[in-house]
Amino acid sequence: MYANFGEILEVVKGRQEKRRIVIAAAQDHEVLECAVQARKQGIASFILVGDQQKIEEILKGFGEDAASWEIINEPDEHKAAQKSMSMVASGEADIPMKGLLHTATFMRAVFNKEYGLVADKSVVSCITVSEFPAQGRMIMVTDSAINVSPDYDAKVKLINNAVPLAVKLGIAQPKVAVIGAVETVNPAMQETIEASMICKAAERGQIKGCLIDGPLALDNAISPQAAEVKGISGPVAGQADILLMPNLLAGNVLDKALRYFGELKTGSYIAGAKVPLVVTSRSDSAANKIHAIALSVL
Amino acid sequence: MYANFGEILEVVKGRQEKRRIVIAAAQDHEVLECAVQARKQGIASFILVGDQQKIEEILKGFGEDAASWEIINEPDEHKAAQKSMSMVASGEADIPMKGLLHTATFMRAVFNKEYGLVADKSVVSCITVSEFPAQGRMIMVTDSAINVSPDYDAKVKLINNAVPLAVKLGIAQPKVAVIGAVETVNPAMQETIEASMICKAAERGQIKGCLIDGPLALDNAISPQAAEVKGISGPVAGQADILLMPNLLAGNVLDKALRYFGELKTGSYIAGAKVPLVVTSRSDSAANKIHAIALSVL
Repeated sequence: MYANFGEILEVVKGRQEKRRIVIAAAQDHEVLECAVQARKQGIASFILVGDQQKIEEILKGFGEDAASWEIINEPDEHKAAQKSMSMVASGEADIPMKGLLHTATFMRAVFNKEYGLVADKSVVSCITVSEFPAQGRMIMVTDSAINVSPDYDAKVKLINNAVPLAVKLGIAQPKVAVIGAVETVNPAMQETIEASMICKAAERGQIKGCLIDGPLALDNAISPQAAEVKGISGPVAGQADILLMPNLLAGNVLDKALRYFGELKTGSYIAGAKVPLVVTSRSDSAANKIHAIALSVL
Repeated sequence: MYANFGEILEVVKGRQEKRRIVIAAAQDHEVLECAVQARKQGIASFILVGDQQKIEEILKGFGEDAASWEIINEPDEHKAAQKSMSMVASGEADIPMKGLLHTATFMRAVFNKEYGLVADKSVVSCITVSEFPAQGRMIMVTDSAINVSPDYDAKVKLINNAVPLAVKLGIAQPKVAVIGAVETVNPAMQETIEASMICKAAERGQIKGCLIDGPLALDNAISPQAAEVKGISGPVAGQADILLMPNLLAGNVLDKALRYFGELKTGSYIAGAKVPLVVTSRSDSAANKIHAIALSVL
Protein backbone atom coordinates (compact mmCIF):
# COMPACT_ATOMS: atom_id res chain seq x y z
CA MET A 1 0.00 0.00 0.00
CA TYR A 2 1.34 3.43 -0.93
CA ALA A 3 1.73 5.68 2.10
CA ASN A 4 2.04 8.96 0.20
CA PHE A 5 2.22 10.61 -3.21
CA GLY A 6 6.01 10.50 -3.15
CA GLU A 7 5.88 6.71 -3.39
CA ILE A 8 3.33 6.82 -6.20
CA LEU A 9 5.44 9.30 -8.15
CA GLU A 10 8.51 7.06 -7.78
CA VAL A 11 6.67 4.08 -9.23
CA VAL A 12 5.20 6.06 -12.08
CA LYS A 13 8.53 7.70 -12.95
CA GLY A 14 10.23 4.30 -12.97
CA ARG A 15 8.07 2.92 -15.73
CA GLN A 16 9.69 2.41 -19.13
CA GLU A 17 6.65 3.13 -21.24
CA LYS A 18 5.04 6.48 -20.54
CA ARG A 19 1.29 6.96 -20.76
CA ARG A 20 0.22 9.50 -23.36
CA ILE A 21 -1.99 12.27 -21.98
CA VAL A 22 -3.88 14.36 -24.52
CA ILE A 23 -4.75 17.86 -23.31
CA ALA A 24 -7.89 19.36 -24.81
CA ALA A 25 -7.51 23.11 -25.35
CA ALA A 26 -3.96 23.08 -24.00
CA GLN A 27 -3.37 26.85 -24.33
CA ASP A 28 -3.49 27.33 -20.56
CA HIS A 29 -0.53 28.66 -18.63
CA GLU A 30 -1.06 26.58 -15.50
CA VAL A 31 -1.99 23.35 -17.26
CA LEU A 32 1.06 23.59 -19.54
CA GLU A 33 3.31 24.38 -16.58
CA CYS A 34 2.05 21.17 -15.03
CA ALA A 35 2.63 19.23 -18.28
CA VAL A 36 6.18 20.58 -18.56
CA GLN A 37 6.92 19.47 -15.00
CA ALA A 38 5.30 16.07 -15.43
CA ARG A 39 7.22 15.41 -18.65
CA LYS A 40 10.51 16.51 -17.10
CA GLN A 41 9.93 14.18 -14.19
CA GLY A 42 9.11 11.30 -16.52
CA ILE A 43 5.55 10.90 -15.25
CA ALA A 44 3.86 10.94 -18.66
CA SER A 45 4.16 12.12 -22.22
CA PHE A 46 1.77 14.70 -23.68
CA ILE A 47 -0.11 15.54 -26.83
CA LEU A 48 -1.30 19.14 -26.91
CA VAL A 49 -4.50 19.87 -28.81
CA GLY A 50 -5.48 23.51 -29.07
CA ASP A 51 -4.41 26.93 -30.29
CA GLN A 52 -0.92 26.08 -31.57
CA GLN A 53 0.35 29.64 -31.61
CA LYS A 54 -0.66 30.29 -28.01
CA ILE A 55 0.61 26.90 -26.90
CA GLU A 56 4.01 27.55 -28.46
CA GLU A 57 4.23 30.99 -26.86
CA ILE A 58 3.47 29.61 -23.41
CA LEU A 59 5.95 26.74 -23.86
CA LYS A 60 8.67 29.19 -24.88
CA GLY A 61 7.91 31.18 -21.74
CA PHE A 62 8.87 28.07 -19.77
CA GLY A 63 12.13 27.80 -21.72
CA GLU A 64 10.81 24.81 -23.68
CA ASP A 65 11.62 23.96 -27.28
CA ALA A 66 8.10 23.86 -28.78
CA ALA A 67 9.34 21.58 -31.57
CA SER A 68 9.94 18.84 -29.02
CA TRP A 69 6.20 18.71 -28.22
CA GLU A 70 3.46 17.03 -30.25
CA ILE A 71 0.98 19.82 -30.94
CA ILE A 72 -2.24 19.56 -32.92
CA ASN A 73 -3.64 22.91 -34.00
CA GLU A 74 -7.35 23.19 -33.15
CA PRO A 75 -8.28 26.63 -31.77
CA ASP A 76 -11.99 25.78 -31.36
CA GLU A 77 -12.59 24.38 -27.87
CA HIS A 78 -15.40 22.04 -28.90
CA LYS A 79 -13.38 20.57 -31.75
CA ALA A 80 -10.30 20.34 -29.55
CA ALA A 81 -12.29 18.30 -27.02
CA GLN A 82 -13.65 16.04 -29.75
CA LYS A 83 -10.23 15.56 -31.34
CA SER A 84 -8.77 14.62 -27.95
CA MET A 85 -11.45 12.00 -27.29
CA SER A 86 -11.17 10.55 -30.78
CA MET A 87 -7.42 10.13 -30.25
CA VAL A 88 -8.10 8.19 -27.04
CA ALA A 89 -10.76 6.11 -28.80
CA SER A 90 -8.36 5.22 -31.61
CA GLY A 91 -5.51 4.39 -29.24
CA GLU A 92 -3.33 7.33 -30.26
CA ALA A 93 -3.54 8.64 -26.69
CA ASP A 94 -4.31 7.05 -23.33
CA ILE A 95 -5.79 9.69 -21.04
CA PRO A 96 -7.76 12.88 -21.81
CA MET A 97 -7.00 15.95 -19.71
CA LYS A 98 -8.98 19.17 -19.51
CA GLY A 99 -7.23 22.38 -20.58
CA LEU A 100 -8.67 25.85 -21.11
CA LEU A 101 -12.29 25.00 -21.83
CA HIS A 102 -15.49 24.64 -19.85
CA THR A 103 -15.77 21.44 -17.89
CA ALA A 104 -19.20 20.89 -19.45
CA THR A 105 -17.68 21.06 -22.95
CA PHE A 106 -14.95 18.62 -21.98
CA MET A 107 -17.42 16.21 -20.37
CA ARG A 108 -19.82 16.41 -23.33
CA ALA A 109 -17.02 15.15 -25.55
CA VAL A 110 -16.23 12.40 -23.03
CA PHE A 111 -19.86 11.24 -23.15
CA ASN A 112 -20.12 11.53 -26.94
CA LYS A 113 -21.24 8.05 -28.00
CA GLU A 114 -19.11 8.24 -31.14
CA TYR A 115 -15.96 7.70 -29.07
CA GLY A 116 -17.40 5.02 -26.79
CA LEU A 117 -15.43 6.22 -23.76
CA VAL A 118 -18.30 5.78 -21.31
CA ALA A 119 -20.32 2.55 -21.13
CA ASP A 120 -24.12 2.82 -20.93
CA LYS A 121 -25.44 3.32 -17.39
CA SER A 122 -22.01 4.20 -16.09
CA VAL A 123 -21.73 7.01 -13.55
CA VAL A 124 -18.68 9.22 -13.80
CA SER A 125 -17.46 10.34 -10.39
CA CYS A 126 -14.64 12.24 -8.75
CA ILE A 127 -12.44 10.64 -6.11
CA THR A 128 -10.17 12.78 -3.97
CA VAL A 129 -7.11 10.85 -2.83
CA SER A 130 -5.43 12.39 0.18
CA GLU A 131 -2.40 11.63 2.26
CA PHE A 132 -3.36 10.92 5.87
CA PRO A 133 -0.06 11.47 7.65
CA ALA A 134 -1.50 10.98 11.14
CA GLN A 135 -2.02 7.33 10.19
CA GLY A 136 0.79 7.00 7.63
CA ARG A 137 -1.56 6.00 4.86
CA MET A 138 -3.80 7.36 2.12
CA ILE A 139 -7.54 7.85 2.15
CA MET A 140 -10.12 8.37 -0.58
CA VAL A 141 -13.20 10.64 -0.61
CA THR A 142 -15.99 10.39 -3.17
CA ASP A 143 -17.87 12.18 -4.70
CA SER A 144 -16.47 15.65 -4.21
CA ALA A 145 -17.15 17.27 -7.55
CA ILE A 146 -19.61 15.70 -9.99
CA ASN A 147 -22.75 14.01 -8.65
CA VAL A 148 -24.89 16.49 -6.71
CA SER A 149 -27.36 14.12 -5.03
CA PRO A 150 -26.55 10.51 -5.89
CA ASP A 151 -29.32 8.06 -5.06
CA TYR A 152 -28.83 4.47 -3.90
CA ASP A 153 -28.04 3.13 -7.38
CA ALA A 154 -25.60 5.92 -8.12
CA LYS A 155 -23.88 5.42 -4.76
CA VAL A 156 -23.29 1.77 -5.52
CA LYS A 157 -21.65 2.88 -8.76
CA LEU A 158 -19.54 5.43 -6.89
CA ILE A 159 -18.25 2.57 -4.73
CA ASN A 160 -17.60 0.44 -7.78
CA ASN A 161 -15.68 3.33 -9.34
CA ALA A 162 -13.55 3.85 -6.25
CA VAL A 163 -12.64 0.24 -5.41
CA PRO A 164 -10.36 -0.37 -8.44
CA LEU A 165 -8.40 2.78 -7.66
CA ALA A 166 -7.99 1.63 -4.06
CA VAL A 167 -6.70 -1.69 -5.37
CA LYS A 168 -4.22 0.20 -7.58
CA LEU A 169 -3.11 2.03 -4.46
CA GLY A 170 -2.28 -1.36 -2.99
CA ILE A 171 -5.33 -1.92 -0.81
CA ALA A 172 -6.43 -5.44 -1.70
CA GLN A 173 -9.82 -5.26 0.01
CA PRO A 174 -10.67 -1.63 0.63
CA LYS A 175 -12.81 -0.64 3.60
CA VAL A 176 -15.69 1.63 2.62
CA ALA A 177 -17.39 3.91 5.17
CA VAL A 178 -20.79 5.28 4.19
CA ILE A 179 -20.68 8.66 5.88
CA GLY A 180 -23.54 10.35 7.71
CA ALA A 181 -23.84 12.96 10.43
CA VAL A 182 -24.56 10.16 12.91
CA GLU A 183 -23.78 6.46 13.16
CA THR A 184 -27.36 5.47 13.97
CA VAL A 185 -30.19 4.65 11.56
CA ASN A 186 -32.65 7.53 11.44
CA PRO A 187 -35.51 7.51 8.92
CA ALA A 188 -35.47 11.31 8.93
CA MET A 189 -31.91 11.28 7.55
CA GLN A 190 -31.89 9.91 4.02
CA GLU A 191 -28.17 9.12 4.09
CA THR A 192 -28.68 6.68 6.97
CA ILE A 193 -31.36 4.84 4.98
CA GLU A 194 -29.07 4.50 1.96
CA ALA A 195 -26.16 3.46 4.18
CA SER A 196 -28.26 0.60 5.59
CA MET A 197 -29.24 -0.51 2.10
CA ILE A 198 -25.67 -0.39 0.82
CA CYS A 199 -24.40 -2.48 3.76
CA LYS A 200 -27.09 -5.10 3.31
CA ALA A 201 -26.47 -5.21 -0.45
CA ALA A 202 -22.78 -5.82 0.23
CA GLU A 203 -23.71 -8.62 2.65
CA ARG A 204 -25.84 -10.19 -0.08
CA GLY A 205 -22.97 -10.08 -2.54
CA GLN A 206 -24.50 -7.28 -4.64
CA ILE A 207 -21.39 -5.13 -4.11
CA LYS A 208 -18.07 -6.92 -4.33
CA GLY A 209 -14.39 -6.45 -3.68
CA CYS A 210 -14.66 -4.35 -0.52
CA LEU A 211 -15.85 -4.28 3.08
CA ILE A 212 -18.60 -1.77 3.83
CA ASP A 213 -20.05 -0.24 6.98
CA GLY A 214 -22.30 2.73 7.60
CA PRO A 215 -23.78 5.01 8.53
CA LEU A 216 -20.63 6.21 10.22
CA ALA A 217 -19.91 9.76 11.27
CA LEU A 218 -16.57 10.96 9.96
CA ASP A 219 -14.84 10.48 13.31
CA ASN A 220 -16.09 6.90 13.72
CA ALA A 221 -14.93 6.17 10.18
CA ILE A 222 -11.33 7.30 10.49
CA SER A 223 -10.44 7.34 14.18
CA PRO A 224 -10.15 3.97 15.96
CA GLN A 225 -10.46 5.82 19.27
CA ALA A 226 -13.67 7.58 18.24
CA ALA A 227 -15.11 4.27 16.98
CA GLU A 228 -14.24 2.59 20.27
CA VAL A 229 -15.81 5.37 22.36
CA LYS A 230 -19.02 4.95 20.36
CA GLY A 231 -18.84 1.16 20.76
CA ILE A 232 -18.70 0.50 17.02
CA SER A 233 -16.70 -2.58 16.11
CA GLY A 234 -16.22 -4.37 12.79
CA PRO A 235 -13.44 -4.15 10.24
CA VAL A 236 -14.32 -0.73 8.76
CA ALA A 237 -14.97 1.61 11.70
CA GLY A 238 -11.95 3.72 12.53
CA GLN A 239 -9.93 2.50 9.57
CA ALA A 240 -11.89 3.30 6.42
CA ASP A 241 -9.99 3.61 3.14
CA ILE A 242 -12.87 5.00 1.09
CA LEU A 243 -15.26 7.62 2.48
CA LEU A 244 -18.51 7.51 0.49
CA MET A 245 -20.02 10.93 1.09
CA PRO A 246 -23.81 11.39 1.23
CA ASN A 247 -23.87 14.17 -1.33
CA LEU A 248 -21.73 16.62 -3.26
CA LEU A 249 -22.05 19.32 -0.65
CA ALA A 250 -20.58 17.19 2.13
CA GLY A 251 -18.01 15.72 -0.25
CA ASN A 252 -16.90 19.10 -1.48
CA VAL A 253 -16.61 20.48 2.04
CA LEU A 254 -14.47 17.52 3.11
CA ASP A 255 -12.31 17.74 -0.01
CA LYS A 256 -11.60 21.40 0.68
CA ALA A 257 -11.16 20.94 4.41
CA LEU A 258 -8.45 18.36 3.68
CA ARG A 259 -6.60 20.83 1.51
CA TYR A 260 -7.21 24.15 3.25
CA PHE A 261 -7.47 23.22 6.93
CA GLY A 262 -5.58 19.95 6.95
CA GLU A 263 -3.01 21.23 4.44
CA LEU A 264 -2.76 17.64 3.23
CA LYS A 265 -1.41 16.57 -0.14
CA THR A 266 -4.24 15.50 -2.39
CA GLY A 267 -4.97 14.52 -5.96
CA SER A 268 -8.27 14.19 -7.81
CA TYR A 269 -9.17 11.22 -9.97
CA ILE A 270 -12.16 10.98 -12.29
CA ALA A 271 -13.43 7.44 -12.61
CA GLY A 272 -16.31 5.76 -14.39
CA ALA A 273 -15.18 6.16 -17.98
CA LYS A 274 -13.16 3.45 -19.74
CA VAL A 275 -10.03 5.55 -19.18
CA PRO A 276 -9.14 7.87 -16.32
CA LEU A 277 -9.91 11.54 -16.92
CA VAL A 278 -7.80 14.39 -15.62
CA VAL A 279 -9.76 17.49 -14.67
CA THR A 280 -7.84 19.88 -12.45
CA SER A 281 -9.23 23.06 -10.99
CA ARG A 282 -7.53 26.40 -11.38
CA SER A 283 -7.35 26.68 -7.61
CA ASP A 284 -5.46 23.38 -7.27
CA SER A 285 -1.83 23.79 -6.31
CA ALA A 286 0.82 22.76 -8.85
CA ALA A 287 1.73 19.76 -6.68
CA ASN A 288 -1.87 18.59 -6.46
CA LYS A 289 -2.19 18.82 -10.26
CA ILE A 290 0.87 16.60 -10.63
CA HIS A 291 -0.70 14.17 -8.16
CA ALA A 292 -3.84 14.05 -10.30
CA ILE A 293 -1.74 13.17 -13.34
CA ALA A 294 0.20 10.53 -11.40
CA LEU A 295 -3.04 8.88 -10.22
CA SER A 296 -4.41 8.75 -13.76
CA VAL A 297 -1.19 7.18 -15.00
CA LEU A 298 -1.02 4.67 -12.15
CA MET B 1 -8.82 39.17 18.39
CA TYR B 2 -7.73 35.96 20.08
CA ALA B 3 -5.40 33.93 17.87
CA ASN B 4 -5.71 30.64 19.77
CA PHE B 5 -7.23 28.88 22.77
CA GLY B 6 -4.11 29.55 24.83
CA GLU B 7 -4.92 33.27 24.79
CA ILE B 8 -8.55 32.65 25.70
CA LEU B 9 -7.54 30.42 28.60
CA GLU B 10 -5.16 33.10 29.90
CA VAL B 11 -7.92 35.72 29.95
CA VAL B 12 -10.42 33.39 31.59
CA LYS B 13 -7.93 32.24 34.23
CA GLY B 14 -7.06 35.84 35.05
CA ARG B 15 -10.58 36.75 36.07
CA GLN B 16 -11.23 37.31 39.76
CA GLU B 17 -14.78 36.06 39.84
CA LYS B 18 -15.21 32.54 38.53
CA ARG B 19 -18.32 31.51 36.63
CA ARG B 20 -20.26 28.68 38.31
CA ILE B 21 -20.88 25.72 36.05
CA VAL B 22 -23.51 23.23 37.20
CA ILE B 23 -23.01 19.71 35.83
CA ALA B 24 -26.20 17.69 35.40
CA ALA B 25 -25.61 13.98 36.23
CA ALA B 26 -21.97 14.64 37.06
CA GLN B 27 -21.10 10.98 37.85
CA ASP B 28 -19.01 10.66 34.69
CA HIS B 29 -15.31 9.91 34.82
CA GLU B 30 -14.32 12.05 31.83
CA VAL B 31 -16.55 15.00 32.61
CA LEU B 32 -15.31 15.10 36.21
CA GLU B 33 -11.70 14.81 35.06
CA CYS B 34 -12.36 17.86 32.93
CA ALA B 35 -13.99 19.71 35.86
CA VAL B 36 -11.04 18.89 38.13
CA GLN B 37 -8.62 20.28 35.55
CA ALA B 38 -10.71 23.37 34.87
CA ARG B 39 -11.04 24.13 38.58
CA LYS B 40 -7.31 23.64 39.19
CA GLN B 41 -6.52 25.98 36.33
CA GLY B 42 -8.93 28.59 37.69
CA ILE B 43 -11.17 28.52 34.63
CA ALA B 44 -14.45 28.04 36.50
CA SER B 45 -16.02 26.76 39.69
CA PHE B 46 -18.39 23.78 39.65
CA ILE B 47 -21.55 22.51 41.27
CA LEU B 48 -22.01 18.76 40.80
CA VAL B 49 -25.58 17.49 40.63
CA GLY B 50 -25.97 13.71 40.45
CA ASP B 51 -25.26 10.45 42.21
CA GLN B 52 -23.27 11.75 45.17
CA GLN B 53 -21.68 8.42 46.09
CA LYS B 54 -20.40 7.79 42.56
CA ILE B 55 -19.26 11.40 42.20
CA GLU B 56 -17.27 11.19 45.43
CA GLU B 57 -15.67 7.90 44.38
CA ILE B 58 -14.58 9.33 41.03
CA LEU B 59 -13.26 12.51 42.67
CA LYS B 60 -11.22 10.42 45.14
CA GLY B 61 -9.79 8.51 42.21
CA PHE B 62 -8.38 11.83 40.98
CA GLY B 63 -6.86 12.48 44.42
CA GLU B 64 -9.49 15.14 45.16
CA ASP B 65 -10.98 15.93 48.55
CA ALA B 66 -14.68 15.44 47.82
CA ALA B 67 -15.57 17.73 50.73
CA SER B 68 -14.07 20.65 48.82
CA TRP B 69 -16.68 20.27 46.08
CA GLU B 70 -20.30 21.41 46.16
CA ILE B 71 -22.29 18.24 45.45
CA ILE B 72 -26.06 17.92 45.29
CA ASN B 73 -27.30 14.34 45.53
CA GLU B 74 -29.82 13.55 42.79
CA PRO B 75 -29.27 10.10 41.27
CA ASP B 76 -32.20 10.39 38.82
CA GLU B 77 -30.95 11.87 35.53
CA HIS B 78 -34.19 13.69 34.70
CA LYS B 79 -34.35 15.31 38.12
CA ALA B 80 -30.64 16.11 38.00
CA ALA B 81 -31.17 17.95 34.72
CA GLN B 82 -34.14 19.84 36.11
CA LYS B 83 -32.32 20.74 39.32
CA SER B 84 -29.38 22.06 37.29
CA MET B 85 -31.59 24.27 35.14
CA SER B 86 -33.54 25.57 38.14
CA MET B 87 -30.24 26.58 39.77
CA VAL B 88 -29.30 28.55 36.66
CA ALA B 89 -32.77 30.11 36.53
CA SER B 90 -32.51 31.22 40.17
CA GLY B 91 -28.99 32.58 39.74
CA GLU B 92 -27.32 29.95 41.95
CA ALA B 93 -25.30 28.81 38.93
CA ASP B 94 -24.32 30.45 35.65
CA ILE B 95 -23.85 27.73 33.04
CA PRO B 96 -25.39 24.26 32.69
CA MET B 97 -23.13 21.43 31.50
CA LYS B 98 -24.15 17.96 30.38
CA GLY B 99 -22.85 15.01 32.38
CA LEU B 100 -23.76 11.32 32.16
CA LEU B 101 -27.23 11.60 30.70
CA HIS B 102 -28.81 11.57 27.26
CA THR B 103 -28.43 14.80 25.34
CA ALA B 104 -32.19 14.75 24.70
CA THR B 105 -32.89 14.62 28.45
CA PHE B 106 -30.48 17.49 29.07
CA MET B 107 -31.97 19.59 26.26
CA ARG B 108 -35.56 18.89 27.38
CA ALA B 109 -34.69 20.43 30.73
CA VAL B 110 -33.04 23.40 28.96
CA PHE B 111 -36.25 23.99 27.00
CA ASN B 112 -38.55 23.46 30.01
CA LYS B 113 -40.56 26.68 30.12
CA GLU B 114 -40.56 26.66 33.91
CA TYR B 115 -36.92 27.77 33.92
CA GLY B 116 -37.22 30.30 31.11
CA LEU B 117 -33.75 29.58 29.76
CA VAL B 118 -34.79 29.72 26.10
CA ALA B 119 -36.81 32.61 24.69
CA ASP B 120 -39.75 31.81 22.42
CA LYS B 121 -38.78 31.30 18.76
CA SER B 122 -35.12 31.00 19.64
CA VAL B 123 -33.08 28.40 17.81
CA VAL B 124 -30.40 26.65 19.83
CA SER B 125 -27.33 25.90 17.72
CA CYS B 126 -23.84 24.51 18.02
CA ILE B 127 -20.82 26.54 16.99
CA THR B 128 -17.43 24.88 16.57
CA VAL B 129 -14.59 27.29 17.25
CA SER B 130 -11.31 26.15 15.75
CA GLU B 131 -7.80 27.44 15.69
CA PHE B 132 -6.67 28.18 12.13
CA PRO B 133 -2.89 28.19 12.54
CA ALA B 134 -2.21 28.62 8.80
CA GLN B 135 -3.71 32.11 9.13
CA GLY B 136 -2.88 32.73 12.80
CA ARG B 137 -6.50 33.24 13.74
CA MET B 138 -9.64 31.46 14.83
CA ILE B 139 -12.61 30.43 12.74
CA MET B 140 -16.17 29.39 13.59
CA VAL B 141 -18.37 26.71 12.00
CA THR B 142 -22.11 26.42 12.55
CA ASP B 143 -24.23 24.29 12.86
CA SER B 144 -22.30 21.09 13.38
CA ALA B 145 -24.48 19.23 15.85
CA ILE B 146 -28.08 20.31 16.42
CA ASN B 147 -30.15 21.59 13.49
CA VAL B 148 -30.45 18.92 10.79
CA SER B 149 -31.89 20.98 7.92
CA PRO B 150 -32.22 24.61 8.95
CA ASP B 151 -34.40 26.66 6.61
CA TYR B 152 -33.87 30.32 5.76
CA ASP B 153 -35.39 31.60 9.01
CA ALA B 154 -33.38 29.17 11.11
CA LYS B 155 -30.18 30.07 9.26
CA VAL B 156 -30.67 33.74 10.06
CA LYS B 157 -30.96 32.72 13.70
CA LEU B 158 -27.82 30.61 13.44
CA ILE B 159 -25.99 33.72 12.24
CA ASN B 160 -27.48 35.79 15.06
CA ASN B 161 -26.35 33.12 17.54
CA ALA B 162 -22.81 33.08 16.18
CA VAL B 163 -22.15 36.81 15.83
CA PRO B 164 -22.07 37.61 19.59
CA LEU B 165 -19.56 34.82 20.18
CA ALA B 166 -17.38 36.19 17.38
CA VAL B 167 -17.56 39.61 19.02
CA LYS B 168 -16.49 38.01 22.33
CA LEU B 169 -13.57 36.51 20.44
CA GLY B 170 -12.56 40.04 19.54
CA ILE B 171 -13.92 40.24 15.99
CA ALA B 172 -15.83 43.52 15.98
CA GLN B 173 -17.62 42.93 12.68
CA PRO B 174 -17.43 39.24 11.85
CA LYS B 175 -17.38 38.08 8.24
CA VAL B 176 -19.93 35.38 7.55
CA ALA B 177 -19.55 33.00 4.58
CA VAL B 178 -22.68 31.11 3.56
CA ILE B 179 -21.16 27.84 2.36
CA GLY B 180 -22.22 25.85 -0.68
CA ALA B 181 -20.56 23.35 -2.98
CA VAL B 182 -20.20 26.12 -5.56
CA GLU B 183 -19.95 29.88 -5.48
CA THR B 184 -22.58 30.41 -8.19
CA VAL B 185 -26.35 30.67 -7.82
CA ASN B 186 -28.01 27.46 -8.97
CA PRO B 187 -31.76 26.96 -8.48
CA ALA B 188 -31.15 23.20 -8.27
CA MET B 189 -29.01 23.70 -5.17
CA GLN B 190 -31.17 24.90 -2.28
CA GLU B 191 -28.21 26.21 -0.30
CA THR B 192 -27.39 28.68 -3.08
CA ILE B 193 -30.96 30.01 -3.00
CA GLU B 194 -30.82 30.53 0.76
CA ALA B 195 -27.37 32.09 0.50
CA SER B 196 -28.71 34.67 -1.97
CA MET B 197 -31.63 35.46 0.32
CA ILE B 198 -29.40 35.82 3.37
CA CYS B 199 -27.04 38.20 1.57
CA LYS B 200 -29.88 40.37 0.32
CA ALA B 201 -31.48 40.39 3.78
CA ALA B 202 -28.17 41.57 5.25
CA GLU B 203 -28.00 44.31 2.60
CA ARG B 204 -31.50 45.43 3.60
CA GLY B 205 -30.51 45.62 7.25
CA GLN B 206 -32.51 42.54 8.27
CA ILE B 207 -29.36 40.90 9.65
CA LYS B 208 -27.02 43.15 11.60
CA GLY B 209 -23.58 43.26 13.13
CA CYS B 210 -21.74 41.29 10.46
CA LEU B 211 -20.68 41.21 6.81
CA ILE B 212 -22.15 38.36 4.77
CA ASP B 213 -21.34 36.77 1.42
CA GLY B 214 -22.40 33.55 -0.21
CA PRO B 215 -22.75 31.11 -1.71
CA LEU B 216 -19.05 30.48 -1.32
CA ALA B 217 -17.36 27.12 -1.62
CA LEU B 218 -15.19 26.36 1.38
CA ASP B 219 -11.98 27.25 -0.45
CA ASN B 220 -13.29 30.63 -1.65
CA ALA B 221 -14.43 31.35 1.90
CA ILE B 222 -11.14 30.78 3.70
CA SER B 223 -8.37 31.05 1.14
CA PRO B 224 -7.63 34.49 -0.33
CA GLN B 225 -5.76 32.76 -3.18
CA ALA B 226 -8.72 30.52 -4.04
CA ALA B 227 -11.07 33.51 -3.94
CA GLU B 228 -8.78 35.44 -6.26
CA VAL B 229 -8.48 32.56 -8.73
CA LYS B 230 -12.30 32.43 -8.90
CA GLY B 231 -12.51 36.20 -9.29
CA ILE B 232 -14.55 36.71 -6.12
CA SER B 233 -13.88 40.01 -4.39
CA GLY B 234 -15.56 41.71 -1.45
CA PRO B 235 -14.71 41.78 2.23
CA VAL B 236 -15.75 38.20 3.11
CA ALA B 237 -14.30 35.93 0.41
CA GLY B 238 -11.06 34.32 1.51
CA GLN B 239 -11.25 35.69 5.04
CA ALA B 240 -14.47 34.47 6.59
CA ASP B 241 -14.70 34.29 10.37
CA ILE B 242 -17.98 32.39 10.53
CA LEU B 243 -18.78 29.53 8.15
CA LEU B 244 -22.55 29.06 7.98
CA MET B 245 -22.94 25.48 6.80
CA PRO B 246 -25.89 24.49 4.60
CA ASN B 247 -26.97 21.61 6.83
CA LEU B 248 -25.94 19.40 9.72
CA LEU B 249 -24.33 16.82 7.49
CA ALA B 250 -21.91 19.27 5.92
CA GLY B 251 -21.34 20.99 9.27
CA ASN B 252 -20.63 17.75 11.04
CA VAL B 253 -18.23 16.61 8.33
CA LEU B 254 -16.32 19.88 8.52
CA ASP B 255 -16.25 19.84 12.33
CA LYS B 256 -14.75 16.36 12.31
CA ALA B 257 -12.38 17.05 9.45
CA LEU B 258 -10.94 19.96 11.43
CA ARG B 259 -10.27 17.69 14.37
CA TYR B 260 -9.31 14.39 12.74
CA PHE B 261 -7.63 15.45 9.50
CA GLY B 262 -6.55 18.97 10.39
CA GLU B 263 -5.66 17.97 13.97
CA LEU B 264 -6.66 21.48 14.94
CA LYS B 265 -7.57 22.61 18.44
CA THR B 266 -11.32 23.14 18.68
CA GLY B 267 -14.04 23.84 21.20
CA SER B 268 -17.82 23.58 20.88
CA TYR B 269 -20.20 26.26 22.03
CA ILE B 270 -23.96 25.95 22.27
CA ALA B 271 -25.72 29.25 21.69
CA GLY B 272 -29.31 30.39 21.47
CA ALA B 273 -30.34 29.97 25.11
CA LYS B 274 -30.09 32.85 27.57
CA VAL B 275 -26.90 31.28 28.94
CA PRO B 276 -24.22 29.27 27.16
CA LEU B 277 -24.64 25.50 27.39
CA VAL B 278 -21.74 23.06 27.62
CA VAL B 279 -22.34 19.75 25.87
CA THR B 280 -19.18 17.80 25.20
CA SER B 281 -19.03 14.51 23.36
CA ARG B 282 -17.35 11.42 24.80
CA SER B 283 -15.06 11.37 21.79
CA ASP B 284 -13.83 14.94 22.40
CA SER B 285 -10.27 15.13 23.64
CA ALA B 286 -9.69 16.41 27.19
CA ALA B 287 -8.19 19.61 25.77
CA ASN B 288 -11.19 20.25 23.52
CA LYS B 289 -13.54 19.79 26.51
CA ILE B 290 -11.57 22.41 28.42
CA HIS B 291 -11.83 24.70 25.38
CA ALA B 292 -15.61 24.26 25.40
CA ILE B 293 -15.73 25.29 29.06
CA ALA B 294 -13.46 28.26 28.41
CA LEU B 295 -15.69 29.47 25.57
CA SER B 296 -18.81 29.22 27.73
CA VAL B 297 -17.09 31.19 30.49
CA LEU B 298 -15.75 33.83 28.10
